[in-house]
Amino acid sequence: MMKSMEDLFYNLLQDVYYAEKQLVKTLPKLAKKSTSPELEKAFMDHRSETEQHVERLERVFEMIGKKARARKCDAILGIIKEGEEVMKQAGEDGICDAGLLAAAQAAEHYEIARYGTLCAWAKTLGHDDAVGPLQETLQEEKKADALLTSIAESGVNEAAMKEAA
Amino acid sequence: MMKSMEDLFYNLLQDVYYAEKQLVKTLPKLAKKSTSPELEKAFMDHRSETEQHVERLERVFEMIGKKARARKCDAILGIIKEGEEVMKQAGEDGICDAGLLAAAQAAEHYEIARYGTLCAWAKTLGHDDAVGPLQETLQEEKKADALLTSIAESGVNEAAMKEAA
Repeated sequence: MMKSMEDLFYNLLQDVYYAEKQLVKTLPKLAKKSTSPELEKAFMDHRSETEQHVERLERVFEMIGKKARARKCDAILGIIKEGEEVMKQAGEDGICDAGLLAAAQAAEHYEIARYGTLCAWAKTLGHDDAVGPLQETLQEEKKADALLTSIAESGVNEAAMKEAA
Repeated sequence: MMKSMEDLFYNLLQDVYYAEKQLVKTLPKLAKKSTSPELEKAFMDHRSETEQHVERLERVFEMIGKKARARKCDAILGIIKEGEEVMKQAGEDGICDAGLLAAAQAAEHYEIARYGTLCAWAKTLGHDDAVGPLQETLQEEKKADALLTSIAESGVNEAAMKEAA
């Protein structure tokens, strides 16, 4: 039973910890499937960042004096499943890139929402030392999302159209 | 098999159509569980908007000459499931509000990501008439998310702390 804001916070930390660990495993798969070198690099760079996000969460667990535990997160599993379906089904290479981009942006936005909530709750609970690392990750997720948008605009979608033509 | 960008676009439209229909059903449940009148109103107002989003999607299906079909979206089901768990488990009323807010913001961000992609793909595909309604919904989702953030900051989280004290 979650009864206090502390429980709610600890619970969401475990959810996001699971999500980040899943993404550490999934990002190299997205990179491998990418045909755009720019997109491949973006996925691999973000994988390194994601490993740091996992470590930062472990520090936050320590700060609040709780065990670092991952708790199955159905939302991220659903997002990953949708991405995998696109990878399986998309025919042409360029089209697959457009699908990978979309799946990655859904994952980024899930994390942006969750870190936004974690930052707000850390402040409410007076876990001032935890706010910094959570905020840092939030900014990196926002930057990763913006980079994916600029890659999409710079031509991955256009390339997908040409592949299909 | 999805082979073209058109298929990818049609596929994602069906995914989001399903998600919006789920949210039409879920938002009144969130409203009913809210103890903050401000939060309850935000959920009910957004429910009316969400009904319009469903209609807008039906217009977009028409614009591209395809049947309006909903396709099971695992991501939104995961997000809703997490929200329901919070509703079941959160003890105090104020704490439940904080959890409802967090769940709703995860749903908003999922939609922000998806409508961002749909707008980009509609442009790439030259579906210029579809860009307007998709953009309109995207803006409403962003506004809904910002409103939820301001409600969280205005005291729902603080109230949750007091409930627990």
